[in-house]
Amino acid sequence: MTLKALREEVLEANLEIVRRGLVLYTFGNASGFDPDSGQCVIKPSGVPYDVLTPDQLVVTDLNGTIVEGDLRPSSDLATHLILYRNFPGVAGVVHTHSRHATAWAQARRDIPCLGTTHADYIRGPIPVTEPMSPADIQHDYELNTGHAIVRRFRELDPLETPAVLVSGHAPFCWGPSPTDAAHNAVIVEELAHLAFLTFTINANAEDLPDHLRDKHFLRKHGKEAYYGQR
Amino acid sequence: MTLKALREEVLEANLEIVRRGLVLYTFGNASGFDPDSGQCVIKPSGVPYDVLTPDQLVVTDLNGTIVEGDLRPSSDLATHLILYRNFPGVAGVVHTHSRHATAWAQARRDIPCLGTTHADYIRGPIPVTEPMSPADIQHDYELNTGHAIVRRFRELDPLETPAVLVSGHAPFCWGPSPTDAAHNAVIVEELAHLAFLTFTINANAEDLPDHLRDKHFLRKHGKEAYYGQR
Amino acid sequence: MTLKALREEVLEANLEIVRRGLVLYTFGNASGFDPDSGQCVIKPSGVPYDVLTPDQLVVTDLNGTIVEGDLRPSSDLATHLILYRNFPGVAGVVHTHSRHATAWAQARRDIPCLGTTHADYIRGPIPVTEPMSPADIQHDYELNTGHAIVRRFRELDPLETPAVLVSGHAPFCWGPSPTDAAHNAVIVEELAHLAFLTFTINANAEDLPDHLRDKHFLRKHGKEAYYGQR
Amino acid sequence: MTLKALREEVLEANLEIVRRGLVLYTFGNASGFDPDSGQCVIKPSGVPYDVLTPDQLVVTDLNGTIVEGDLRPSSDLATHLILYRNFPGVAGVVHTHSRHATAWAQARRDIPCLGTTHADYIRGPIPVTEPMSPADIQHDYELNTGHAIVRRFRELDPLETPAVLVSGHAPFCWGPSPTDAAHNAVIVEELAHLAFLTFTINANAEDLPDHLRDKHFLRKHGKEAYYGQR
Repeated sequence: MTLKALREEVLEANLEIVRRGLVLYTFGNASGFDPDSGQCVIKPSGVPYDVLTPDQLVVTDLNGTIVEGDLRPSSDLATHLILYRNFPGVAGVVHTHSRHATAWAQARRDIPCLGTTHADYIRGPIPVTEPMSPADIQHDYELNTGHAIVRRFRELDPLETPAVLVSGHAPFCWGPSPTDAAHNAVIVEELAHLAFLTFTINANAEDLPDHLRDKHFLRKHGKEAYYGQR
Repeated sequence: MTLKALREEVLEANLEIVRRGLVLYTFGNASGFDPDSGQCVIKPSGVPYDVLTPDQLVVTDLNGTIVEGDLRPSSDLATHLILYRNFPGVAGVVHTHSRHATAWAQARRDIPCLGTTHADYIRGPIPVTEPMSPADIQHDYELNTGHAIVRRFRELDPLETPAVLVSGHAPFCWGPSPTDAAHNAVIVEELAHLAFLTFTINANAEDLPDHLRDKHFLRKHGKEAYYGQR
Repeated sequence: MTLKALREEVLEANLEIVRRGLVLYTFGNASGFDPDSGQCVIKPSGVPYDVLTPDQLVVTDLNGTIVEGDLRPSSDLATHLILYRNFPGVAGVVHTHSRHATAWAQARRDIPCLGTTHADYIRGPIPVTEPMSPADIQHDYELNTGHAIVRRFRELDPLETPAVLVSGHAPFCWGPSPTDAAHNAVIVEELAHLAFLTFTINANAEDLPDHLRDKHFLRKHGKEAYYGQR
Repeated sequence: MTLKALREEVLEANLEIVRRGLVLYTFGNASGFDPDSGQCVIKPSGVPYDVLTPDQLVVTDLNGTIVEGDLRPSSDLATHLILYRNFPGVAGVVHTHSRHATAWAQARRDIPCLGTTHADYIRGPIPVTEPMSPADIQHDYELNTGHAIVRRFRELDPLETPAVLVSGHAPFCWGPSPTDAAHNAVIVEELAHLAFLTFTINANAEDLPDHLRDKHFLRKHGKEAYYGQR
């Protein structure tokens, strides 16, 4: 993949989360990663989306050193990079403050898998991280946010659970490309909204049975998938 | 009815559920059935709505054998067909993951008839199916989804109750035409939203009395109807 | 006021409730009344709003006899007329199934005056009618709906409380003109939404104190009003 | 700053709150203040936003005496002025009846700082004022509303907490400019919506820990800030 193509896909992922109503003002950012070159392309910090151009995107290496770009990268860069370093196969990361997913993060509750819409995308709950220590917040906050996510995924497969809620903060979503990550961010907001409604209707709503959850997940993912045109 | 006319009406029903905000990405599908020819026209699987043309719709017989079309039909085809085979007078089926109706399906609760808006369209609760067995989920899942719906309607008239919530999944709606089925899908989402609000305001809200429910249903349906221009 | 001008204002009131998102499909209707001629202009039954013209509106006298028009009037005509006959000073009536107001009607709860937004328009709760008897529903249903509203207003001033929730049904709103009635319908939906949120946040939320309620109502109504350009 | 520039910024702030969906009809108003000239520019009372021009804005001194303008100023002028007189550094005030913030005001509950979205803008809860006495409501109501706000801020820094909920009424927001005040009004509505959802999901949701709150506030405010392009 050329850097030019990656820039364009990352720009498009940033615009997609705006078009889908996930972004207020400059909240949120999308990045993409090219495992061959080891380069990351990310939104600059605090730049309004409606004037964003591919040239303004910032290119860094996996340590956050700027390779190309005159603007400061998103302040969440360090979080994105630690996900690329730790989650093999992930090549796109999207962070938003989308309303319902953020409310679940603020409520510090996992979003359980309550229905097939959820299971079509995620093979289990959307987990919330453990609260961070004062020391982890004080220094290298964004880096430590990434570490908190990675710790939460010790026993989870990031490709089967392509999203997390950072405790008291908001969601990070990812996928095998920036386009997939943005798509997952839209889906996570919808699932958070559905779960909000479901528990308001029935406070004792139960998780989808495992066999139904897996049926739906595997209908769309893996070698036995039979959804869509293949 | 010509196959061409049916294709156009089915396309329009698919677009109507998008226009009305019932569809996210490629969730959902509409089909139509011609009882004379025994042919069903349905949306292809996973094709974005904004590029959908009448020619891309798939034509099958009642057993699901493809009669016309190069694309794979919606993965929910088997569910649609079993409804056409078992519900006389039904010639349109629409499946969506519309937000509030899906939340009720996830909450695994019937939507009671709480007001006259509901009674104008549906003569009783919108029922939720029984959970399916692991075996029914493992093999012929979509066919067995249809069987679960039909079992739920043993004592219900599908023309007086033109919708169901599949447990843990989402609504299926139907009617005497694809246009009616799409219209009912919009109404069911509105009724699900109203019922969500009603129970949040008053957890002990009561069903509409039978005589008021029937007054409204029969004001719009059957030979004594007096609503609209006739 | 000429009949032509009344037709145009009634059409505009019908379109306003659509523009403001209070109407799904053909739910809802607006009418106007000219006390000098004793004529009422009302929407025809079941006609889509986007093709509605002033000529299609139906003109009746206060007994419901059609004076002009080829179409059947709204099935709710009898309810509108009884309000004009019983509420002096009322010259516009609007009926909608707007979402939050309808949910309160289904919950069969008065909407209390919880804040100054409410008090700016309505000097007390928005009342819900008593349930109607089976006999009242069976025969002359729409007329008896009007009677139920009038009974509920025995001790209320319809100009200080320009709206009602019909139990299990939906709101009727009114005012000194069709324009005012449509405006009040928009406000009632907003107040219903605010009250829904308020009680969800605080189940024990209290009514606005009388002196604050009256301050706001009288800031906008009556001879001591000082809001706006006068 | 010229008066012409201030007029244009105040007009723009008034239009921004409309564009962002915070305003129904003529609810709400924005003003700006020039500390050098001691002049305040404010929206006229009850004028629809879509016909508002810079020339129609009303210019007053800090006592409310009209310096320029043919229209009556917003009836809330006295509240705005007392904020300019008491909150050094504040040069823009915006009052809306935005839905979720108004619901919290009606519920008479502070909006706690539940997440980092809140902490990015406000360093603690959004406070609700004490109820006003009947005497304070009867005479000089708008002035006394301002006094109630100022009393509530005895131990708060208005630049760290740029918003208040007036008990039973609605929010007032402010900032170092009319643009900032309008921006804060949009944010306050979003925070109110997030807090509504958070408590509905988890009635026992806890405040963000102080160290995380301050980290986010100071990431965007003060001399150690590192968000955006600086």
